[in-house]
Amino acid sequence: MSEEKKTSLESIGEFGLIEELTKDFKNKRGSTIYGVGDDAAVIEKDGENVMLVSTDALVEGIHFNLMYTPLMHLGYKAVVVNLSDIYAMNGTAEQITVTIAASSRFPKEALEELYKGIKKACDIYEVDLVGGDTTSSVSGLMISITAIGTAKKEDVVYRNGGKENELIVVTGDLGAAYMGLQILEREKSVYKANPDIQPDLDGFDYILERQLKPEARKDIVKFLAELGVKPTSMIDVSDGLASELFHLCTQSDLGAVIYDEKLPIDTSVSTTAIDFDISPTTCVLNGGEDYELLFSIKQEDFDKIKGNPHMTVIGHYAAKDSGLYLVDKQGAAIQLKAQGWNHFHGQKGN
Amino acid sequence: MSEEKKTSLESIGEFGLIEELTKDFKNKRGSTIYGVGDDAAVIEKDGENVMLVSTDALVEGIHFNLMYTPLMHLGYKAVVVNLSDIYAMNGTAEQITVTIAASSRFPKEALEELYKGIKKACDIYEVDLVGGDTTSSVSGLMISITAIGTAKKEDVVYRNGGKENELIVVTGDLGAAYMGLQILEREKSVYKANPDIQPDLDGFDYILERQLKPEARKDIVKFLAELGVKPTSMIDVSDGLASELFHLCTQSDLGAVIYDEKLPIDTSVSTTAIDFDISPTTCVLNGGEDYELLFSIKQEDFDKIKGNPHMTVIGHYAAKDSGLYLVDKQGAAIQLKAQGWNHFHGQKGN
Repeated sequence: MSEEKKTSLESIGEFGLIEELTKDFKNKRGSTIYGVGDDAAVIEKDGENVMLVSTDALVEGIHFNLMYTPLMHLGYKAVVVNLSDIYAMNGTAEQITVTIAASSRFPKEALEELYKGIKKACDIYEVDLVGGDTTSSVSGLMISITAIGTAKKEDVVYRNGGKENELIVVTGDLGAAYMGLQILEREKSVYKANPDIQPDLDGFDYILERQLKPEARKDIVKFLAELGVKPTSMIDVSDGLASELFHLCTQSDLGAVIYDEKLPIDTSVSTTAIDFDISPTTCVLNGGEDYELLFSIKQEDFDKIKGNPHMTVIGHYAAKDSGLYLVDKQGAAIQLKAQGWNHFHGQKGN
Repeated sequence: MSEEKKTSLESIGEFGLIEELTKDFKNKRGSTIYGVGDDAAVIEKDGENVMLVSTDALVEGIHFNLMYTPLMHLGYKAVVVNLSDIYAMNGTAEQITVTIAASSRFPKEALEELYKGIKKACDIYEVDLVGGDTTSSVSGLMISITAIGTAKKEDVVYRNGGKENELIVVTGDLGAAYMGLQILEREKSVYKANPDIQPDLDGFDYILERQLKPEARKDIVKFLAELGVKPTSMIDVSDGLASELFHLCTQSDLGAVIYDEKLPIDTSVSTTAIDFDISPTTCVLNGGEDYELLFSIKQEDFDKIKGNPHMTVIGHYAAKDSGLYLVDKQGAAIQLKAQGWNHFHGQKGN
């Protein structure tokens, strides 16, 4: 490698980096239907169905801090964030492989706790642990999981299928995991300053659970099938809403308008955000780790999801050259930038 | 986790650990044909064919040392060691996903080197890179790869299919990668003592290449099909021969006898081993990272492989209670223990 040319990873960010690193790779196998660039790869299965494959890693000090993350929750979360990618393709998750690298700081009993969480997620989401690798590391803990799923070929939803004027829908509520992280970081600072003070976590159950033990929206895939709605584009909200919307728009070659007043935010998130002097909208747009699904539907499908407590229409796609805008509560249009999580900056989800 | 009970990972070793951690997991999916415990998981594809899935990680400071490992070779090797697991099931590797965690010490140009090696392996072995994750780490570099392959259901070879008196065959030659590591470690020590001395690597091309840029035996799967030989049990030699033979015997519920004089060892390995005052047989039995295939065939298939320069019969299976023995050049039978690589001890392959 030449000494004179060194580009830091921070200056590129994950998405630009993956694109650059993989730009010369060409798919050679007829069985590869879709490779790098969506929530999961799509591989031919039997003509009618496909296999979905997705990989995500959680790294100590980057994605989690063991000072406030119970190992059992961490194991659970590591599985869930991977399954979320399979659901974001409108598929069914069936198997996982788990690779763990752990330093000598972790005794067997620590890995047993981690595996208890992995098992709980496998049981709840009905997936099988079929393999993996357990190795040592020089320092720290890393968990890399590959999730394998299936879907009917015709049911697979890509990021790039959106069309102008289609409705943009998000499931559940957003911003809670990010606020949970702020609470945990605050209590960590308090504890570091004075270890005798007990952490004050009362009343934050919901937002802490969203951060420490998130769930993936397996149920939404089922609901949509029952409602007879096939999204036209979809992604999971692992980074902030702005970043995910940016991905959908880029890949669908569209712009979008979303409305601040429509964004689903739990009351506890709003009040905590205001306590922290953060705008709740910022938590939603630039937070992360919500693991909700963001998708688009045809206008004629609106009646099928109207009033559904799990889904909120937050805006619509627009022509590409009209850009990506948030309309605030005063009616002003604010241009959005993809300020979601950058893997090479501090701690956020994946 | 209880404070009073802490069991170090070193005291268990990888295989005991994985078995313990996964013992409570039950497969729930009809599509899971074979889960944890072989070189790859086996998943239903289309009735006639199966998908094979295997995951392996390489961790800096454990599996590689960047002081003497070029990043391009490392990328190549990380792919190869994973494909080897697919070939060890008698399958065809088709896709990989790549997860990389790198600290800020690695500029973009370093990852580009790594990906050049990954691409080279993808091109040579005809596999597609279909996804992955690139994230930061607090320190060091880790590469976790999942390989996906296919095989006809009837062609899949498991570790547990061996029968008494079947012949035990190994491909290529063994021990070279281990000796390559010894050379590199020696030159590292010399360099550390006196950075002005140039490393003396002349004449070690073969064994260095076996360590730094190993190949997986894709060709053997093809040869065996052409010869009309289906192995009855198979594993890849990522740890030492003793450890791999131990796995085959345990899973096939058998004993085995192998013959020292039959072990395929390159002349350069023997001479270097003697220089290092190590027995060449020890390199073969307890070394690692050869990525050859170890398998058993029915006696009646012997004529089909006889004289094949890629395959050597080194012994045969025996009844379980007769144990696992090496017959040395003087005709003495020495009981073998699984002293192959323990992931939680120092640097060896995987």
